[in-house]
Amino acid sequence: MPQGTPSTVPDDGLTTRQRRNRALVVVHTGEMKGKSTAAFGMALRAWNQGWPIGVFQFVKSAKWRVGEETALRALGDVHAQSGAGGPVSWHKMGAGWSWTRRQGTDTDHAADALEGWQQIKRDLAAETYRFYVLDEFTYPMDWGWVDVDDVVATLRDRPGQQHVVITGRRAAPALVEAADLVVQMTKVKHPMDAGQKGQRGIEW
Amino acid sequence: MPQGTPSTVPDDGLTTRQRRNRALVVVHTGEMKGKSTAAFGMALRAWNQGWPIGVFQFVKSAKWRVGEETALRALGDVHAQSGAGGPVSWHKMGAGWSWTRRQGTDTDHAADALEGWQQIKRDLAAETYRFYVLDEFTYPMDWGWVDVDDVVATLRDRPGQQHVVITGRRAAPALVEAADLVVQMTKVKHPMDAGQKGQRGIEW
Repeated sequence: MPQGTPSTVPDDGLTTRQRRNRALVVVHTGEMKGKSTAAFGMALRAWNQGWPIGVFQFVKSAKWRVGEETALRALGDVHAQSGAGGPVSWHKMGAGWSWTRRQGTDTDHAADALEGWQQIKRDLAAETYRFYVLDEFTYPMDWGWVDVDDVVATLRDRPGQQHVVITGRRAAPALVEAADLVVQMTKVKHPMDAGQKGQRGIEW
Repeated sequence: MPQGTPSTVPDDGLTTRQRRNRALVVVHTGEMKGKSTAAFGMALRAWNQGWPIGVFQFVKSAKWRVGEETALRALGDVHAQSGAGGPVSWHKMGAGWSWTRRQGTDTDHAADALEGWQQIKRDLAAETYRFYVLDEFTYPMDWGWVDVDDVVATLRDRPGQQHVVITGRRAAPALVEAADLVVQMTKVKHPMDAGQKGQRGIEW
């Protein structure tokens, strides 16, 4: 929340304005719900700024993110029709696998995930979007499919004003170190502990 | 995330289907960003289900939630025009104050907040919405403006299938106890610690 007063003022040679407009790398990690959900909530603010939004979804199942995808695509349509907000592009990388259930061979999925990351690198180099959601992107890094050092270097050297939000458990220490903002979602109480099943409109 | 297998099956006499469709009280608390953002991300899923969404915003400043409000209102307009998704109502309670900066007298703000809560009670009784965001609603409870026991009893006895998400720091223990799902957002790293200023498109 905008409290206005930073706890320290760095000796980085930047003006307040430059510091205000610095593009961020954000990581949402931890064991609990809300990591991706908060990333898509951030996308609403980006949309309202008219920023081009690119979502790269690194897990896929029939239900996964269908609500967020439909709503954000609808906002992209609003932009296309009325000029309000910004355009939205939604990409599914490595179709058919998820961190809970992998189908097909690991080799295929690794290649899909790596191709997804190569696309992101191309988009970052071209400044295609202003706001990126790399949803569940920690997993292909955790599994060794995508090289963490390559991700960190690419993010560090990206041009222009591109905000990047990465979600998922087990964020690599080098990624956490490189990020500007890291939020950990921790569990206080979860309804599945009390036998609640996942449900429509809440989990997807 | 929908893992499918609850860790325990409760002896509550409910079928799996009944348990799947149980309306939830969700609390997003903790010191870190993402509490409200994740609630608005959840609203995208609710919208995609066609559920009527009611947002009750218990803090207000010129910038506050303007991105989320504009985007969710745009989704409400999509519903009105095409029938896709659900309708969205956005209510601002206790205008002119926030947890960082109160203007006017506490007496006025307490009355505004209490009237806001009375409106929510009427809407819950009438089943006006299927998905509620009570944004920053922990603060009027924390300040004694709204009675926590009344909130807990009202939520416990609410009719039908109404999901309620409450955000804010310092959630009352009785509210945490009454909630089905409680997520705590904790800080790992925050750019304001390094002198970063709040910025357009990220904080609002």
